[in-house]
Amino acid sequence: MTRGEKLYEGKAKIVYATADPEVYVQDFKDSATAFDGKKRGTIGGKGRMNNAISARLFTLLEERGIATHFLGWESETAMRIHRLDMFPVEFVVRNLAAGSLSKRIGYPEGTALKNPPIVEYYYKDDALGDPLLCMAHLNELQVISPEDLAEATAMAKQANAILVEFFARRGLTLVDCKLEFGKDARGAIRLGDEISPDTCRFWDSETGEKLDKDRFRRDLGGVEDAYAEVLRRIER
Amino acid sequence: MTRGEKLYEGKAKIVYATADPEVYVQDFKDSATAFDGKKRGTIGGKGRMNNAISARLFTLLEERGIATHFLGWESETAMRIHRLDMFPVEFVVRNLAAGSLSKRIGYPEGTALKNPPIVEYYYKDDALGDPLLCMAHLNELQVISPEDLAEATAMAKQANAILVEFFARRGLTLVDCKLEFGKDARGAIRLGDEISPDTCRFWDSETGEKLDKDRFRRDLGGVEDAYAEVLRRIER
Repeated sequence: MTRGEKLYEGKAKIVYATADPEVYVQDFKDSATAFDGKKRGTIGGKGRMNNAISARLFTLLEERGIATHFLGWESETAMRIHRLDMFPVEFVVRNLAAGSLSKRIGYPEGTALKNPPIVEYYYKDDALGDPLLCMAHLNELQVISPEDLAEATAMAKQANAILVEFFARRGLTLVDCKLEFGKDARGAIRLGDEISPDTCRFWDSETGEKLDKDRFRRDLGGVEDAYAEVLRRIER
Repeated sequence: MTRGEKLYEGKAKIVYATADPEVYVQDFKDSATAFDGKKRGTIGGKGRMNNAISARLFTLLEERGIATHFLGWESETAMRIHRLDMFPVEFVVRNLAAGSLSKRIGYPEGTALKNPPIVEYYYKDDALGDPLLCMAHLNELQVISPEDLAEATAMAKQANAILVEFFARRGLTLVDCKLEFGKDARGAIRLGDEISPDTCRFWDSETGEKLDKDRFRRDLGGVEDAYAEVLRRIER
């Protein structure tokens, strides 16, 4: 598919138009950022690995009845996707305490939740630092309707449950994942963005080893190997 | 009433036991802190003024059917209060955007809310920095039952509505207020803590002048005069 105009370049992906106004190409980059862009770096092969991981997981979710934006492979680092009008909200689905949830509620990382998953909403707004939003804030901002929020939340929980089970069979614990949703030309809600070690926390179920972007955020080393290991587990 | 053991000393108040195990004395201090204690100072006469302001407002709310912990004047800087088992949650009721809400949702200070008030919940935990809690976090932490949360939230909104109207007649806009609740010996929920320029934002309705702790937080000067002006408006 011929790539057209570059429509958007983010921290980890570039989105291109195509001849079909409802089809975009999403190209994954090796660059990585953390802490609202304060930390920057490159993870060799990340674009290729995240494209492969996301493609496989979107396919899995489609097979299990979750509508996604995935249309097919485009290249080693790129996929064809449905054009979506994205909700400016990140849906963070948490199965165990980690990261900002641990800091917020005082649970050591890895603590089991009483009634998982917890779904948190964050406002996709770089200038504001992607803040946490409670229901009162969402109702005030009106950036997503209550009906769409409920439907996307249900989809987020279903997708999370499918992913938890899929990874458990591969010796990986899905600690949490950040999902983004939008509406296609027909008004149907689809899961967009990516599902990768950039956007999920994966821990080896036996050793607890972190196999995700926390290795980059926290300078743990072995970042490329961690992403490669996730891809290897997915492909087996 | 003879003061007994000092039970608690916080940033702005000291609580003493009395001979009656269900009655405490709450003594207001002149010391002030902001930004999780990173900023410290003294506001001359604050203890006396906040005691007078809180006593007047608790009395008003009791007259209007809101149960509070207020039992009566004890001294110029102290009041007798019901002993309460406090919920470790701050209820922040917001009528206009200001402070952290402005930062969170990107509204300039003073922006009207579409459907006021917004009620936010913060975890009273100094070590965690009193973080914002959404419903999912409250359900996880189980530090307050859903029934108590609903009842206290309803009381917070009722108290806010009474206070908004009371201050509007005195030329003050109640922008937001932080309320705390607890249960007395009979299990009834009562409004506790204090209601003062330390815990509310008051703006002059005509000039917009800030008459509250933001003058201290933001080094605006005239802090004592602002507290005195609020007391003067309340007493008229």
